[in-house]
Amino acid sequence: MSDQSISRSPGNNLDPWYANYAERTSGLSASEVRALFAVASRPEVVSLAGGMPFVSALPAELITGSLEKVMREQGGMALQYGSGAGQPALREQILEVMALEGIRGTVDNVVTTTGSQQALDLVTKLFIDPGDVILAEAPSYVGAIGVFRSYQANVVHVAMDDDGLNPDALRETIAHLRGQGRRIKFLYTIPNFHNPAGVTMSAARRPEILEICRRNEILVLEDNPYGLLHFEEKAPDALRSIDEDGVIYLGSFSKTLAPGFRVGWALAPHAIREKLILAAESAILSPSAFSQLTVSEYLRSTDWKAQIDTFRGVYKQRKEAMVAALEEYLPDLSWTDPNGGFYVWLTLPDRLDSKQMLPRAVKELVAYTPGTAFFADGRGRHAMRLSFCYPTPESIRVGIRRLATVINGELDLLDTFAGTGPLQIASREIHVSSPPPNIS
Amino acid sequence: MSDQSISRSPGNNLDPWYANYAERTSGLSASEVRALFAVASRPEVVSLAGGMPFVSALPAELITGSLEKVMREQGGMALQYGSGAGQPALREQILEVMALEGIRGTVDNVVTTTGSQQALDLVTKLFIDPGDVILAEAPSYVGAIGVFRSYQANVVHVAMDDDGLNPDALRETIAHLRGQGRRIKFLYTIPNFHNPAGVTMSAARRPEILEICRRNEILVLEDNPYGLLHFEEKAPDALRSIDEDGVIYLGSFSKTLAPGFRVGWALAPHAIREKLILAAESAILSPSAFSQLTVSEYLRSTDWKAQIDTFRGVYKQRKEAMVAALEEYLPDLSWTDPNGGFYVWLTLPDRLDSKQMLPRAVKELVAYTPGTAFFADGRGRHAMRLSFCYPTPESIRVGIRRLATVINGELDLLDTFAGTGPLQIASREIHVSSPPPNIS
Repeated sequence: MSDQSISRSPGNNLDPWYANYAERTSGLSASEVRALFAVASRPEVVSLAGGMPFVSALPAELITGSLEKVMREQGGMALQYGSGAGQPALREQILEVMALEGIRGTVDNVVTTTGSQQALDLVTKLFIDPGDVILAEAPSYVGAIGVFRSYQANVVHVAMDDDGLNPDALRETIAHLRGQGRRIKFLYTIPNFHNPAGVTMSAARRPEILEICRRNEILVLEDNPYGLLHFEEKAPDALRSIDEDGVIYLGSFSKTLAPGFRVGWALAPHAIREKLILAAESAILSPSAFSQLTVSEYLRSTDWKAQIDTFRGVYKQRKEAMVAALEEYLPDLSWTDPNGGFYVWLTLPDRLDSKQMLPRAVKELVAYTPGTAFFADGRGRHAMRLSFCYPTPESIRVGIRRLATVINGELDLLDTFAGTGPLQIASREIHVSSPPPNIS
Repeated sequence: MSDQSISRSPGNNLDPWYANYAERTSGLSASEVRALFAVASRPEVVSLAGGMPFVSALPAELITGSLEKVMREQGGMALQYGSGAGQPALREQILEVMALEGIRGTVDNVVTTTGSQQALDLVTKLFIDPGDVILAEAPSYVGAIGVFRSYQANVVHVAMDDDGLNPDALRETIAHLRGQGRRIKFLYTIPNFHNPAGVTMSAARRPEILEICRRNEILVLEDNPYGLLHFEEKAPDALRSIDEDGVIYLGSFSKTLAPGFRVGWALAPHAIREKLILAAESAILSPSAFSQLTVSEYLRSTDWKAQIDTFRGVYKQRKEAMVAALEEYLPDLSWTDPNGGFYVWLTLPDRLDSKQMLPRAVKELVAYTPGTAFFADGRGRHAMRLSFCYPTPESIRVGIRRLATVINGELDLLDTFAGTGPLQIASREIHVSSPPPNIS
């Protein structure tokens, strides 16, 4: 401090600026789970909680080679500001990536973003006034719920089953909300290898869901970070391949290449993408040219499809390890068995509460994400998300064995105290309100 | 399109989703100046319009060396998600950078962002409800005005002079607004080598301005991208060096290294930075680890202060070329003569309108940014911002000569038609409402 220091008398609480925040800021609160995850990042804990891709399966020399080439041939451009819409060469290549899932678009309608998370943020900013409704699967991606809440949206969940979002439930939910005079702005859906549910929307349901939204003039926000990470047959073509005017499609290189570049994108109907670019420029001026050109060079000079095949093999093996361990250690429970992606959704007996159980699990050196993180309405206590993307198959097996110890221990306790009323295992309420780091 | 295509009948305007946007989105409109700047990016046009740093003065091998080292030694971390607050090692180094301007902070209170533009966006999101007032210098940074508008703030300008923001004007403006019952959330200020005005807040005024804000419980948002780019003596110590509880400080590597990495930061009081991290995680999960580690390695392994000296020399020479050309070709006009940064502010005779004149200037192969871009209230017609950061001294001289031709031509026309009423030089209104690309 200089000797010109101004002394400020402390306000009547710990934050002198407390009264000055915007209304929307009250929706941002630190999660108690965050502290637990900090503990869970210790190496002795098997974390089945995060969504970190296994980037060690990516040969570093492929990236280094691309980097050197970019600096040698396009250094001036890589170091400079760029277009708010993103680098044209990369946007052309993104069309090729999307073509693998049946999408035809034009380069003009592609906007690259700082991860697809930023696209989610910008679309929400463009469309959501406080109190507007966003429809989302039950459960849905924790990071999307956080963004929606940060713009004061009301998230209304729609039931899903093994074939994904349920069209009848969608119709009923829309009718019910319309009956109440609510404004529904869009449907947020993750059709492929759902985060956290692990299921995929069937091909038959896709046009039906789109037709329901079209009739009700509800925009569809299709989030597809995992589509190319299928274990057997590929996922059905994207919703965007069926309807180009009613769908904003979000894609990402975080899972098929690496999240460290923070390169994702949106493909939007023409009028929307105009506004998306203005919103993106307002938020960050332009996305990193350096990151984008590196990804572009990687796509140009390497066999990126073969690299995705490698990732597929890694994740398939890990998924199989997780399902085998669940069958061995927790045969009485039910779980989803995904055909791609990163996640299994485990359903617990109704008597168990995954939030209250988490501190005990961390004590037993295993971590997961409680189901409540994936609902905006407090549901999810009797479920959890298990990630198989990052730990080795051996660690996954150890983790599930520890989880079984915790679950069986809880059930034993409940049996012991049967008839003495509901058991409060942990007195402290754990509140999940924003995505902890690395949960994506 | 697949054969499942849904045909959508066009709405009653060009955007079928027109009725669905949020209220705030009406503040986003494409600038007509944007189209002109697209023309102005042709190589034969001397652009004095952009804010692009001259990255060619940065030896590419310094960056390539840092990149290779990062991939060799920290590749796994560079490719992965990171902390929402940013990489700890870089945040430590940012403390050293800020110490050059008298700032003492703790690493905990530093948050790295996707350029300091993102920090601007996040702070505005945290504090601004629709209708809240933000105080800003008259004129102010076009990209800040765009962000503030995107959250429906009312920007109220406060007069500045050659010593920067005027304390008396600040007192009067606050009293006036308070008299109207308006909610003032923060003062946005660029104390050093102001964008666009080119002036620097005097050392004497700094504690006075802080004291006015402290008494009125108004937070100060100090934006300092140019502080280290002084031409002679350094700028006075940062506002943040005098008051650590009342100031959010924004810094950037875009001007002292390169914008292509998109690495900036905020240093905020403890309670605010907690919310800033939550908002940042909601917006992008985490900033690019790859970019941050590269910047960190560059700071560790190169003489970055010598590189800043190189930039200073380049920009000083260009500023001198611009001022000399103004003295030669436009001796009757007045302009600011900055001691650092990127910009000169040129005041025109009241009879001239810089917005209306821009198409003619582009036709004469010179571009500038009309003064109206830097006001939220329509002022600025009789001024323009001239950037000397990117073109060579020779180009600057050519550009100013062309500008003089345009200005003198307009004045001749006005003299010819004197007495026939106000002259409408261009019939088309040019509306600046969001920053065109590369105007920063």
